[in-house]
Amino acid sequence: MKGVNDSRFLRACRREPVDCTPVWFMRQAGRYMEEYRRVRERYSLLEICRTPELAARVTLQPIRRLDLDAAIIFADILLPLQSMGIDFDFSKGEGPVIHNTLRTPNDIRNLEVPHPEEGPVSVFEAIRLVRRELDSKIPLIGFAGAPFTVASYLIEGGYSRRFVNTKMIMYYHPESWHDLMKKLTTMTIQYLQGQVKAGAQAVQLFDSWIGCLCPADYTSFVLPYSKSIFERLRPLGIPTIHFGTGTAALLELMRRAGSDIVGVDWRIGLKEAWRRLGGKVGIQGNLDPVAMLGPRDKLKEKVEQVLEQAEGKVGHIFNLGHGILPETPVENVEAVIEWVKQKSKRTHSVKSRAAKAVSAVGARRKKR
Amino acid sequence: MKGVNDSRFLRACRREPVDCTPVWFMRQAGRYMEEYRRVRERYSLLEICRTPELAARVTLQPIRRLDLDAAIIFADILLPLQSMGIDFDFSKGEGPVIHNTLRTPNDIRNLEVPHPEEGPVSVFEAIRLVRRELDSKIPLIGFAGAPFTVASYLIEGGYSRRFVNTKMIMYYHPESWHDLMKKLTTMTIQYLQGQVKAGAQAVQLFDSWIGCLCPADYTSFVLPYSKSIFERLRPLGIPTIHFGTGTAALLELMRRAGSDIVGVDWRIGLKEAWRRLGGKVGIQGNLDPVAMLGPRDKLKEKVEQVLEQAEGKVGHIFNLGHGILPETPVENVEAVIEWVKQKSKRTHSVKSRAAKAVSAVGARRKKR
Repeated sequence: MKGVNDSRFLRACRREPVDCTPVWFMRQAGRYMEEYRRVRERYSLLEICRTPELAARVTLQPIRRLDLDAAIIFADILLPLQSMGIDFDFSKGEGPVIHNTLRTPNDIRNLEVPHPEEGPVSVFEAIRLVRRELDSKIPLIGFAGAPFTVASYLIEGGYSRRFVNTKMIMYYHPESWHDLMKKLTTMTIQYLQGQVKAGAQAVQLFDSWIGCLCPADYTSFVLPYSKSIFERLRPLGIPTIHFGTGTAALLELMRRAGSDIVGVDWRIGLKEAWRRLGGKVGIQGNLDPVAMLGPRDKLKEKVEQVLEQAEGKVGHIFNLGHGILPETPVENVEAVIEWVKQKSKRTHSVKSRAAKAVSAVGARRKKR
Repeated sequence: MKGVNDSRFLRACRREPVDCTPVWFMRQAGRYMEEYRRVRERYSLLEICRTPELAARVTLQPIRRLDLDAAIIFADILLPLQSMGIDFDFSKGEGPVIHNTLRTPNDIRNLEVPHPEEGPVSVFEAIRLVRRELDSKIPLIGFAGAPFTVASYLIEGGYSRRFVNTKMIMYYHPESWHDLMKKLTTMTIQYLQGQVKAGAQAVQLFDSWIGCLCPADYTSFVLPYSKSIFERLRPLGIPTIHFGTGTAALLELMRRAGSDIVGVDWRIGLKEAWRRLGGKVGIQGNLDPVAMLGPRDKLKEKVEQVLEQAEGKVGHIFNLGHGILPETPVENVEAVIEWVKQKSKRTHSVKSRAAKAVSAVGARRKKR
């Protein structure tokens, strides 16, 4: 019997041939689903995250309804900060608001990295619960925010347009910046190791906002830490995904961080992205989440464009370029999954027939 | 006597050798200057724009204080929309707020392009006033918002993070989108022609928000209109600059729009940007405006990085990657101008000595 290691998603992560392109969506457990909205009527986002049974339940909702190739644990990138004494909340539809932001070198010096056992153990427990419920063919993805993106929330207090305070810490207090990045790197490694130990079969590192940096700053202030995370995860033997938005000019550098897969957004064509990343890495992406709002014919055209750009290469995982929007019709999500499977099945089977034909010709030639 | 045509800025626009790299800043007339803040205490932004004497006065403020190589007329990209019946205001520090947004095909159908003489004539008059006052060595830049960016304001009602409504018009009502772009293109061409007739010696087209689009959408929904604007400006014989942010994956397409100079932001290194744009176009940029907030040694390092990336090539105009921030210390602006001149003077003179040496060697060889 074929196990989870033979699943489309994990095969694609290892850049092995698949029958069709695997597909999952960032924020696939979310407000676009009625099932999720019903849970949210009774519990806040943080309550769901902190209650393993609830987190497991919403993680499984999209898996039960949609033909997805991977589950991703329901959590938030700021969760592990709670045990560091960071106090935050989620304002309505606006993302996190951090109440005790870091603004001075002193704030950073006083920040303590907790022992992993004091970390967000509810996430580990939720992972164990989900694994028990999951079909053996559907792998479970764990995740964490990357040190830069988490630092930007800690410093700005929420989503930022210009990242002025973050860059000011980098430029005015580089030692404090590096100190903060080291602390967050340590925490991220322990957090992801804990998730893998609990049963996560792949992990994604979300560096969502690195697109605000120039390549030189990314190289000095961010890359060494992301690299060290992937280095420490490698011995665990699970695939790693490195995601960011607005990264068209950072892809060569992200490649150096060393993940198996790089997640890209819609701002760059997949063909060009792959050219810049080189052949030895997989790609996840890259439909614009706004396209998911329809209309259906335009959406289909855009799904096909993504698949055409991927050229049926091994190592492509279909996803959006960022999280699914709450106003997305669930029927559109269903349709996209179906189109990806249909269209990529044809490409993959043509490719595999072509490969067989080539090897048959090779075999005949050898015989002569 | 050398006239304005021999100015550093216009020579660089034509990709001719210069003694040092010309420098100006987007929003160089702005809140970071005390002189400007004093005018703003008495008049609103719109009042300044609508009063030629005030617009001329603030346009000249940075020129009188700083060693800049070009002036840019003080105006706003939404000004020409007033005669189209669009009602807008500027909220404090948050950019424009449009009161009667376009949301339906009907709204777009009813939008009328005014006759050019009914347009923002105050800008033309301000240009005439500035030209009378300007030193003959300092060229004056006119500008307009590009159809896509102006359309996004009209549809979203202000700055947008995801451009959902704009993309929904594109996808659900493509004919209406193209109708809107045609109207805005006609208006932009007339508006820029009027500015050149009034005395603008170069023009910049601001397509600030195109970075939200995937290359395929840029190609179908935006490029034809930007291209048609540059085509219609070419007979006027003045240099054109095409600016956008987050354009790392759009540069080859922007090149096809046909401006003389492409303005890029800090998200891509100038060397890579130039490689993608090809040899026959100049580049304007690309310091991160946040770096202008200091500290001084970091700022100097970053200015030098930009100049090193430009490699002293003809056709480089030093600028920021977006508008100067209001909190920028004016002393930092002064310092940046000085560093650009100092450092690039060395590069240009080394290059020109090298060029002379090469041609001298060539001459000696020919003699033999």
